[in-house]
Amino acid sequence: MNSFGRLFRIHIFGESHNQNVGIVIDGCPCGIKIDFDELNIDLERRKANKKGTTKRKESDIPIFISGVINNTTTGTPITVIFENKDIKSKDYDKMKAIPRPGHADFTASNKYKGFNDLRGGGHFSGRLTLGLVVAGYLAKKIINPVSVNAKLIEVKGSNDIDKAISDAIEKGDSVGGIIECIADNMPVGLGEPFFDSVESTISHLIFSIPGIRGIEFGSGFKSSNVFGSECNDIFINSEGKTETNNAGGINGGISNGNPLMFKVAVKPTSSISRLQNTYNFKTKQMENFIITGRHDACFALRVPVIVESFASIALADLLLINKSLNS
Amino acid sequence: MNSFGRLFRIHIFGESHNQNVGIVIDGCPCGIKIDFDELNIDLERRKANKKGTTKRKESDIPIFISGVINNTTTGTPITVIFENKDIKSKDYDKMKAIPRPGHADFTASNKYKGFNDLRGGGHFSGRLTLGLVVAGYLAKKIINPVSVNAKLIEVKGSNDIDKAISDAIEKGDSVGGIIECIADNMPVGLGEPFFDSVESTISHLIFSIPGIRGIEFGSGFKSSNVFGSECNDIFINSEGKTETNNAGGINGGISNGNPLMFKVAVKPTSSISRLQNTYNFKTKQMENFIITGRHDACFALRVPVIVESFASIALADLLLINKSLNS
Amino acid sequence: MNSFGRLFRIHIFGESHNQNVGIVIDGCPCGIKIDFDELNIDLERRKANKKGTTKRKESDIPIFISGVINNTTTGTPITVIFENKDIKSKDYDKMKAIPRPGHADFTASNKYKGFNDLRGGGHFSGRLTLGLVVAGYLAKKIINPVSVNAKLIEVKGSNDIDKAISDAIEKGDSVGGIIECIADNMPVGLGEPFFDSVESTISHLIFSIPGIRGIEFGSGFKSSNVFGSECNDIFINSEGKTETNNAGGINGGISNGNPLMFKVAVKPTSSISRLQNTYNFKTKQMENFIITGRHDACFALRVPVIVESFASIALADLLLINKSLNS
Amino acid sequence: MNSFGRLFRIHIFGESHNQNVGIVIDGCPCGIKIDFDELNIDLERRKANKKGTTKRKESDIPIFISGVINNTTTGTPITVIFENKDIKSKDYDKMKAIPRPGHADFTASNKYKGFNDLRGGGHFSGRLTLGLVVAGYLAKKIINPVSVNAKLIEVKGSNDIDKAISDAIEKGDSVGGIIECIADNMPVGLGEPFFDSVESTISHLIFSIPGIRGIEFGSGFKSSNVFGSECNDIFINSEGKTETNNAGGINGGISNGNPLMFKVAVKPTSSISRLQNTYNFKTKQMENFIITGRHDACFALRVPVIVESFASIALADLLLINKSLNS
Repeated sequence: MNSFGRLFRIHIFGESHNQNVGIVIDGCPCGIKIDFDELNIDLERRKANKKGTTKRKESDIPIFISGVINNTTTGTPITVIFENKDIKSKDYDKMKAIPRPGHADFTASNKYKGFNDLRGGGHFSGRLTLGLVVAGYLAKKIINPVSVNAKLIEVKGSNDIDKAISDAIEKGDSVGGIIECIADNMPVGLGEPFFDSVESTISHLIFSIPGIRGIEFGSGFKSSNVFGSECNDIFINSEGKTETNNAGGINGGISNGNPLMFKVAVKPTSSISRLQNTYNFKTKQMENFIITGRHDACFALRVPVIVESFASIALADLLLINKSLNS
Repeated sequence: MNSFGRLFRIHIFGESHNQNVGIVIDGCPCGIKIDFDELNIDLERRKANKKGTTKRKESDIPIFISGVINNTTTGTPITVIFENKDIKSKDYDKMKAIPRPGHADFTASNKYKGFNDLRGGGHFSGRLTLGLVVAGYLAKKIINPVSVNAKLIEVKGSNDIDKAISDAIEKGDSVGGIIECIADNMPVGLGEPFFDSVESTISHLIFSIPGIRGIEFGSGFKSSNVFGSECNDIFINSEGKTETNNAGGINGGISNGNPLMFKVAVKPTSSISRLQNTYNFKTKQMENFIITGRHDACFALRVPVIVESFASIALADLLLINKSLNS
Repeated sequence: MNSFGRLFRIHIFGESHNQNVGIVIDGCPCGIKIDFDELNIDLERRKANKKGTTKRKESDIPIFISGVINNTTTGTPITVIFENKDIKSKDYDKMKAIPRPGHADFTASNKYKGFNDLRGGGHFSGRLTLGLVVAGYLAKKIINPVSVNAKLIEVKGSNDIDKAISDAIEKGDSVGGIIECIADNMPVGLGEPFFDSVESTISHLIFSIPGIRGIEFGSGFKSSNVFGSECNDIFINSEGKTETNNAGGINGGISNGNPLMFKVAVKPTSSISRLQNTYNFKTKQMENFIITGRHDACFALRVPVIVESFASIALADLLLINKSLNS
Repeated sequence: MNSFGRLFRIHIFGESHNQNVGIVIDGCPCGIKIDFDELNIDLERRKANKKGTTKRKESDIPIFISGVINNTTTGTPITVIFENKDIKSKDYDKMKAIPRPGHADFTASNKYKGFNDLRGGGHFSGRLTLGLVVAGYLAKKIINPVSVNAKLIEVKGSNDIDKAISDAIEKGDSVGGIIECIADNMPVGLGEPFFDSVESTISHLIFSIPGIRGIEFGSGFKSSNVFGSECNDIFINSEGKTETNNAGGINGGISNGNPLMFKVAVKPTSSISRLQNTYNFKTKQMENFIITGRHDACFALRVPVIVESFASIALADLLLINKSLNS
């Protein structure tokens, strides 16, 4: 199901080395002005242009083919496509025999009986997240003045992010990290129990990002290790402000007006330059194997803007739903 | 949105101290025999009947009012209700002025403008999970021979579960814990990218359970702290068996045939017997406050069967979807 | 799929001769006061209590088991059940061998492999529409001041409804009719193109009623028989009022503020007292067959309130969606 | 909501005079071979290339930008776009002041607060149906050996279609007609009660087509005018074949194996060359008004392939759902 959302709805499509990747954004309110410079800032944050990211160079220019006139949303579906240009598919020739460990090669080929596009990870490429940045940009406009910010706070267990990445590159290896996301100026009342709690909605989206291994809200896993008296957030004023924020701004699945807070664990990039000994499905033997394609040493560097976009998309949908019942 | 699922669909309803809690299960295949003794084992696991759980005693007998004849599913919607009998609503009288810290009292009253049922947590009570055990029971039949098992492996950071709970009771406090869930005999191919990955589907459901603070799959948060070469799971045979299982049985959001594994962090019960200093929304002052109602010292004790049910429900839905495209 | 709606959502369940029929209504705004006398007027309109309707007598008292306290909606799912009491299942004994012509006996038994409840039509009974009257009642409150009215305007091609029915009863036969539904005080802007036009949403619901054979909006089938110059509705004021209303109050799938108008064709009751020569699936021979159970000579008499409820439900959902984008 | 379907899902986008119209088709099984000559036959049937259709000439070449490699579906979302080239937007300059009678100009401008694309009808143009032909083509492959055929059987009440159209052209007027659709080789068991009956699913889609005023299944409106003994379809063999087919191949919302049959009423084209006296929303006065743009005298000529596509899409979705429960 390549769709998400009840009122603010997104539909993604595309493959890494096929003609395009893109997105249809449906249910976006009319009259939203798109500032392309501003949008480009978010697209740049996702780009591969720093140490630790792949050498594949794409211009990543969004082409709006429907739903926008005069840089303004019309209320009908917004379709954005991106071209795939810097394609070197030869790197991926051996994939059929030797599915890359940690990638979707094995599972996708099984599920789609070999008809799937394996080149560059096909539909399972992180490149699919490009359109999500555009959807996130529009979502941020909808939820304004809520302000969502995500950043990489840790790589391989350390705050010294640059050093950890350099170390991995030197070893021909890869590393992951922890991303923290905070939304300020939250209203009270977002989230639709029982099944569409704020946490359910956000985690559903976050686990769509290839390579996410965990999510925790507020004090998260640590909360399993303290007494209730240490974990409860005491209210201190009539707006519902709490002294602490162990709940990450959510009670009973509904936002309580305090900052929304969650953390996400990103695994190391699966593609590494080091030798791996894995199974060859043709020869039916174990085999030494090196991935020669381009890849990120730490793709977690590029994920914060996606996390931020997804949090915004989730909140935009919940906000529109909440509006319908309260206006 | 009190509904979940695309083909195997559940709709829950009810309040803790109103007439009933219950569930409608739609899209369940016909011809499934219900063994009430077997179902009762799961219902008992959820019950409050051990040290560390509330003194509220309910018989929790499932009444099937539609969709089942001769103990067999008919293919049409299955409705199950449970009666609420052991109700002591006087315990919750002060709620309007002093919303209980950590509970949904404040957020629900805001969202529903004071029309919501506050008694016993109303629609936000853990009692709502009763029907989910029945849905989980049927889901387990659908996914057979996949076998899902969840257990509490840690309370307040310790494996000595009984001692940790006794300690909390003595202090008039509460504790949380970690639940581990494993599904064996998994087929390859469950999960619907991009948005309905196995992780997305399961986490969406898990975060509906009141009091969950985090979820991680496979090596989870630890994976952010190792090299890619340590984290990749090497294939070792033509069924896709991997040497390690850091991915928790999932690649690219799709099950790879290895055991599905995830862990869930449960916070301590919000209701504690100790004094709490919190805001009184009527007097507009901070106030010392004691919760006198019955409550669990460690509701995490009762959650494993819910986690197990939700994992089964998620897998049943994904299995039916996968079938439609592969038969 | 026994569910309908995006924001105002209904889930129906039950069988004619099983314990209950009922409905879960989710997404209903909080704070709606239920006047049981008023609701009862609609339930009475659906009842079998006049010439031409079945002799089965049910009290049809709605029991609200969740989502309502102090006769007021709480914002959480509203569950209503009705008891089945006046059951004479022996009338339906021959069903397995001889599926009744015009009924769902044959198709349902095939689809559900014989596990379905055949008694009284099971899940396919018109009795399932009971809960819809309650949902329609709440929907009418939501769409107020829009006012929806449906009535039977024709039976067996004639306006002399009483005579046409008497004639059918005398012959041991049955008759159908035409129902007209009009919604006044419509706002401009309801309907969500491309797929959730007003017509799509209403017709989807209307064709759920057992025995509906056709629907037309505005000038309907007649519009295929005139020139465009005769069919276009000319605007005559700045509110969008049109001189004629051939479009039935809808342009491009969106309400234009003029009265919404549609007609529905109801077939004659399938169960008749006359001899029918049909196939016996056990003996594999044609056989003379008489249906001895109780049945309506003209069930169209009981359908207007259902049509009215469905139109209101459709408009309530579209109104809530429209609100979310315009507030 | 520009999306339809539960398993076979379509999402349409685009505007008549903007860059593209197109569709995303998600949930399409992998391994379906696309024969472009065959697909082109259906696209040609929709084209404006005969007497009575608009002079706008578009090549209507489908460009597959995702989900297809080697002319074969991959199992991931299929995106098809069509370019808009022959655009003469100056014809539509007066639209803002004088919304065209019978069109969506007035309602869309209200709903989207003037931000919508009015040029050529924008998102409400019949041009949006282009992508549906591609989706219909794929759906036909999925439902094979079911064979769906729709044709125009009547124009302005007459079978002499060519003459009726010539007459309208001569008068500068427009005409509508009746389309009949029949699906042969139907299996028993398609349709998902209560709300996703075959009729509900098909009518939902059909009423998305701009300009449809009515739909009837089997004997349709005529069935309201006969006795039950004349309307019941008697079974005559163990496959469920019936002597007559007044039910149009459906009992209780589920296909009974007999041919599926329905008819659709298409109104005359709203744009006519004759003078119309309508309201000017700027001058606030009635005004004589001539539409000078290109238009179809009888767009019903181009609709049969859309009806056929929609019937196929509905059946494909119902077939996949039914498979999931029966395999």
